[in-house]
Amino acid sequence: MVYLTRIENFNAAHKLYNEAWSFEKNQAEFGKCANANWHGHNYKLEVTVKGKPDKATGYFINAAELSSIIKREITEVLDHKNLNIDIDWLKGVQPTSEMICISIWKQLSPHLEGKCQLHKLKLVETPNIYVEYYGE
Amino acid sequence: MVYLTRIENFNAAHKLYNEAWSFEKNQAEFGKCANANWHGHNYKLEVTVKGKPDKATGYFINAAELSSIIKREITEVLDHKNLNIDIDWLKGVQPTSEMICISIWKQLSPHLEGKCQLHKLKLVETPNIYVEYYGE
Amino acid sequence: MVYLTRIENFNAAHKLYNEAWSFEKNQAEFGKCANANWHGHNYKLEVTVKGKPDKATGYFINAAELSSIIKREITEVLDHKNLNIDIDWLKGVQPTSEMICISIWKQLSPHLEGKCQLHKLKLVETPNIYVEYYGE
Amino acid sequence: MVYLTRIENFNAAHKLYNEAWSFEKNQAEFGKCANANWHGHNYKLEVTVKGKPDKATGYFINAAELSSIIKREITEVLDHKNLNIDIDWLKGVQPTSEMICISIWKQLSPHLEGKCQLHKLKLVETPNIYVEYYGE
Amino acid sequence: MVYLTRIENFNAAHKLYNEAWSFEKNQAEFGKCANANWHGHNYKLEVTVKGKPDKATGYFINAAELSSIIKREITEVLDHKNLNIDIDWLKGVQPTSEMICISIWKQLSPHLEGKCQLHKLKLVETPNIYVEYYGE
Amino acid sequence: MVYLTRIENFNAAHKLYNEAWSFEKNQAEFGKCANANWHGHNYKLEVTVKGKPDKATGYFINAAELSSIIKREITEVLDHKNLNIDIDWLKGVQPTSEMICISIWKQLSPHLEGKCQLHKLKLVETPNIYVEYYGE
Repeated sequence: MVYLTRIENFNAAHKLYNEAWSFEKNQAEFGKCANANWHGHNYKLEVTVKGKPDKATGYFINAAELSSIIKREITEVLDHKNLNIDIDWLKGVQPTSEMICISIWKQLSPHLEGKCQLHKLKLVETPNIYVEYYGE
Repeated sequence: MVYLTRIENFNAAHKLYNEAWSFEKNQAEFGKCANANWHGHNYKLEVTVKGKPDKATGYFINAAELSSIIKREITEVLDHKNLNIDIDWLKGVQPTSEMICISIWKQLSPHLEGKCQLHKLKLVETPNIYVEYYGE
Repeated sequence: MVYLTRIENFNAAHKLYNEAWSFEKNQAEFGKCANANWHGHNYKLEVTVKGKPDKATGYFINAAELSSIIKREITEVLDHKNLNIDIDWLKGVQPTSEMICISIWKQLSPHLEGKCQLHKLKLVETPNIYVEYYGE
Repeated sequence: MVYLTRIENFNAAHKLYNEAWSFEKNQAEFGKCANANWHGHNYKLEVTVKGKPDKATGYFINAAELSSIIKREITEVLDHKNLNIDIDWLKGVQPTSEMICISIWKQLSPHLEGKCQLHKLKLVETPNIYVEYYGE
Repeated sequence: MVYLTRIENFNAAHKLYNEAWSFEKNQAEFGKCANANWHGHNYKLEVTVKGKPDKATGYFINAAELSSIIKREITEVLDHKNLNIDIDWLKGVQPTSEMICISIWKQLSPHLEGKCQLHKLKLVETPNIYVEYYGE
Repeated sequence: MVYLTRIENFNAAHKLYNEAWSFEKNQAEFGKCANANWHGHNYKLEVTVKGKPDKATGYFINAAELSSIIKREITEVLDHKNLNIDIDWLKGVQPTSEMICISIWKQLSPHLEGKCQLHKLKLVETPNIYVEYYGE
């Protein structure tokens, strides 16, 4: 079993805000992340898949094909968007890196079925913060 | 003459949009950067100052003092903000990295007077795009 | 279960030296790392915690709170210090990255109890050497 | 148990090409990676070993000794070479990062026996693609 | 005047070899870089242009347009190629980073005329070696 | 004229302390950098030289030869040392990055005479602080 990781990027706006709470409670919980007019990040997404390489090709999935799927299904969809407003499959989700990562897993994994097994997602929000998710 | 560079960071939302133009012209000129609901970046700001080191201290300005000034006047002001809306001194400025960099120069340089000479600003917008400005 | 990693930094001096050995044996075992007058590093500490995100906040611990704990208990304690001499909880410990990492685990984990589960520590000593520890 | 990782580098040429296939089939499968006159990469190899640190030294293997073994057995052998032609132990292997990584494991692991346990190899082919292998 | 830099990448094979010299003289001068069967690198190209930003757009050239020109004229031409053999405009050129950089300048600058002024090229060959060229 | 940069590294201990001042004045001026028992850094040194490439070799100095000179004269001398105590040519120098950079210029430039012209030194002290020096 070998693990292959492909990295793609997207730049997006978001804020952390719970509509069920008062403005003050949002400020207390989320601090500057609750800024009404949004802020944003250069997100880096690392997609790790696993499989047994074929002897004829030397791989179990072509990294270029994997890149095309990630870009088509995820990063080109999220790029230059507002993660609270613009994305159907993030509606009602608090857009922390933790929750975005879980939502990307649900969105991406069906498109890899029959090709390879999704092993891990890593979402880097700033040079000092990242999250990882293994699907459960 | 020695050049000292201090790096600070901020995360912000913006869009490129000219209110004097039609929606279609904005789309044609700015593409995805014109997304109505904003997008954002992890900005990295490199501030380069120059001077002649003092023998007693080994520097012409303490890097910790330089850091405090940059954070107080610039990066803590811009961090987790919307660059089109939230910042007084960016009002009416198209918030490209080029224009933000020129505006930061105007804002920062008076606070360094009498301490050291501002030589260059470098603003990194994405891992693949940055701008530099020397004050003229 | 999602894994959140927060990165903090500290700069410190150390040397590798076993007082129970002769100077010659120290030289033979540790080479230039045994230099009598110390050397030092920019250490990067990656703290990975795990948990189940709350729907209301989108996380199981606020990354800003995690950062505060790491800085207060670990990186501000170690920053600009001598790891052989200055730190109570490193007394009698050979300050390799391996042993520092194990000691940081003991020091940090009680402060995360009731908030989240400490999963992994990664300590980067140079761009080419790092260690990882999972608590056992 | 602590995990120690040492990073070494090599620069090499390769192409992906299956001699049992037609030129057209190679083009269709491997795209630009099949270019007849080769292309190349700056490869970064991360070698992770595990063990229980000795109290007297603070480690289970000296990182400098680990570095010497990796360089002597792997990276100095592969550096400035053609991975399809020049290396005995890569003969008949399709030189994807996946297969190179598996071959490095076979080549390196006997030289670590009695010193420490090889845990993982990570081979970074470009800033956006890497593979990992755990020996099975 | 503001300086804008756009970064693009290509992966290529090359060797340093002077056909007018004996094998031995090539070995003595170029060492492992003269390996008969080639080696290769992940090259990173930084293109810096300068101009005066337009108030309406906030830039003097759209970074996306600059990226398209660099990719079309340079990096997609060089990517996954052999720099000694495959490129018309590198024929007869010793493919050091120094000479490649000068050749890229000649090739790229006519395509920027009337749009902006080419200021500098930086070509990164390995994490530890890069060259810069200002056109004269 | 082309500019070639070669990067080398060293890890060292230092403190900022002026023996002519009281302990209190040192604390006030240098803060945690004055810690009596030292601290340290992973320093990165970038050496930029300039010249006109020879057509036969494609360079004006072989990057491997430049690397040998830098390592022999500077980085292997400073590596794993105490910059306040261990180095003859830093005696009496306040070991800030500014002053170390000026001292390295004096030490390195005679060894490049007749080979190439030293253009710039860049010394990176932490990921957020670096200095540059052009020899005057």
